[in-house]
Amino acid sequence: MKWTWVLVAVLLFFGGVSLGKESLDFPEYDGKDRVHDLNAKNYKSVMKKYDVMVVYYHDHVGSSRVAQRQFEIEELALELAAQVLDEFDDEDIGVGLIDAKHDKAVAKKLGLEESDSIFIFTDDEVIEYDGELAADTLVEFIYDVLEDPVEIIDNSRELKGFENVEEDIKLVGYFKSHKSEHFEAFVDAAEEFHPHIQFFATFNPKVAKALELKLNEVDFYEPFIDDPVVIPGKPYTEDELVKFIEDNDRPTLRKLQPHNMYEIWVRTEDDIDDEHIIAFAEESDPDGFEFLEILKQVAKDNTENPDLSIVWIDPDDFPLLLPHWEKTFGIDLSSPQIGIVDTDDADSVWMDMDDGEDLPTVDELEDWIEDALSVIIFSLSNSDQCSFKSQHH
Amino acid sequence: MKWTWVLVAVLLFFGGVSLGKESLDFPEYDGKDRVHDLNAKNYKSVMKKYDVMVVYYHDHVGSSRVAQRQFEIEELALELAAQVLDEFDDEDIGVGLIDAKHDKAVAKKLGLEESDSIFIFTDDEVIEYDGELAADTLVEFIYDVLEDPVEIIDNSRELKGFENVEEDIKLVGYFKSHKSEHFEAFVDAAEEFHPHIQFFATFNPKVAKALELKLNEVDFYEPFIDDPVVIPGKPYTEDELVKFIEDNDRPTLRKLQPHNMYEIWVRTEDDIDDEHIIAFAEESDPDGFEFLEILKQVAKDNTENPDLSIVWIDPDDFPLLLPHWEKTFGIDLSSPQIGIVDTDDADSVWMDMDDGEDLPTVDELEDWIEDALSVIIFSLSNSDQCSFKSQHH
Repeated sequence: MKWTWVLVAVLLFFGGVSLGKESLDFPEYDGKDRVHDLNAKNYKSVMKKYDVMVVYYHDHVGSSRVAQRQFEIEELALELAAQVLDEFDDEDIGVGLIDAKHDKAVAKKLGLEESDSIFIFTDDEVIEYDGELAADTLVEFIYDVLEDPVEIIDNSRELKGFENVEEDIKLVGYFKSHKSEHFEAFVDAAEEFHPHIQFFATFNPKVAKALELKLNEVDFYEPFIDDPVVIPGKPYTEDELVKFIEDNDRPTLRKLQPHNMYEIWVRTEDDIDDEHIIAFAEESDPDGFEFLEILKQVAKDNTENPDLSIVWIDPDDFPLLLPHWEKTFGIDLSSPQIGIVDTDDADSVWMDMDDGEDLPTVDELEDWIEDALSVIIFSLSNSDQCSFKSQHH
Repeated sequence: MKWTWVLVAVLLFFGGVSLGKESLDFPEYDGKDRVHDLNAKNYKSVMKKYDVMVVYYHDHVGSSRVAQRQFEIEELALELAAQVLDEFDDEDIGVGLIDAKHDKAVAKKLGLEESDSIFIFTDDEVIEYDGELAADTLVEFIYDVLEDPVEIIDNSRELKGFENVEEDIKLVGYFKSHKSEHFEAFVDAAEEFHPHIQFFATFNPKVAKALELKLNEVDFYEPFIDDPVVIPGKPYTEDELVKFIEDNDRPTLRKLQPHNMYEIWVRTEDDIDDEHIIAFAEESDPDGFEFLEILKQVAKDNTENPDLSIVWIDPDDFPLLLPHWEKTFGIDLSSPQIGIVDTDDADSVWMDMDDGEDLPTVDELEDWIEDALSVIIFSLSNSDQCSFKSQHH
């Protein structure tokens, strides 16, 4: 071990002067305007000033009081984010607004098609953020954007860290060195999906052996599935990797998180005609943990089924939405729930689970999901509407 | 298996009407005033109206613009919390303010001594909340308050859920049934610490066997330590349990979380003359995970050392504080860090770890901590100030 360390203790004990909680104080908006209104005249010069530009391409704000207030709160969140990012040393990060009515032309020039989203412009990528418009979630996402797109695994402890990542899609490749052209293709592919998908690589033969990876081979892991798929046809070009990932970007089980919630909810690839299978389970609660284990087993058994995609929501991640969900869906979220939700009108059906007293087995859950999926498909084949009732013994 | 289920599908496919993101929309403050200003005249009648009352006993707001703005933001967070809790079906939950200058007498009558904290009044307990004043964190804490103080473990999957709880102090007891007087004493003790400490019980001999628990025995688990301490002297009275927990309420390693951050930071029992050993490690990052594994091993090796208490902070939990910490402490939080922080003046010293390229071994970390602690103790013995330099080979 080559590292050395110096302990320089300049611990001053004057006493009496108590600043108490200061070093833990949350920043509060200091009132300085940092968010830029971007328009045809200024957008080039403003964006040139920053290494990274965060642009909220928002719908035009109507004249109603509710719309005005909502936009004020959104602006305040962006101002707080801009203030925190202003203090961040590593990069100059700017925040701006583009109005979808007045400045559609600017958005078009920047290549933005869809409004009501946040776009992060870095050196050579534009990354969409489709999560909660809250300062902390957005800022955390931007830190992730700024990190290297590929994380290197050097030893067995870091390998445990890699194994611990289960909530996102992840890939890991084994390459000769940083200079390998195959590693470079892997990095280029990573940049296309970063930070939504996690990319790891190792140059260490022992780590590669533990992962059962051959040289220049890349494994693809679905969330919550321990066994990877070996991407066929190594070594790969960047395009081959990108295509494989795009073709497999619909996991059997995925977690709704504040930073990706709208992306998961509204992406058409991820639902079946606007229907989602939603499972609520609080991981920190024994019942919720138990149900989640069952769900993971179902996902493992059905990873080949292209029709099955379950969205897991941990109510702990969304405390402010909990009463709203309980009311909208007519369910009690103090115990696990699984159901089908129509994302258009929030109509839903839920499995009857006796308030979590007696959770279903893996087989029972699979039967229920199969019936539920067939109801969806049956509904799809009826153009108007349908009402369907099924009773399981 | 006795559960049955009904699948009633009333899935309407009118199409065209797209409400899109609606069921995921975060609630926004609707402008209705729900937070009560409590004073000598109204506090009794207001508090009688609710099952649970959340009271922010705040310092009097000064006349400066910054103080006024800060309090407005706090009020807005409480209004949003009140609005969400208003929608919550299970209990009537009210929110109120007590001004520490104008209404000290009211606070005194309610038994509140310390201002600048939030107190939650339930049927028979007053629970202090000393976390972030943000609507989501506060609301989440209140949901925890409303849950049963003791969670029952029925089967091996729930046992896995119990084992998965590692960030908080937890206790688990084995009792004959709900009606056992020893279980009742356990519940009474749980109510004293709920929800800050987690209490579990089982009535299932198989679960008890897996936990190596004898009848009426209770095990005490420090955070991040797999092996429990058997509380001596079973069966216990409520007072015996309370005393044991109070005597052991200073873990070797604990995690700073938004809902307990100020409690951990300023509680005098938890630091050594206002010094904290702070470790920053991002669990979702391989380096951070690796360092955390080392920290857990150090905690395990030193669980008997009453002087050692390490506070682990995952930067992911506090994105808005990250640049502030990097500046205040002069460190780079993109890799793991460990140091000693003076909570009074935020002076600090940090271990030199080569930007996480080469993490210390468990032994090296223990040596550093030992030196660091001796510096603190050395400093304590010098009344004025000290400057100390140590060089490790």
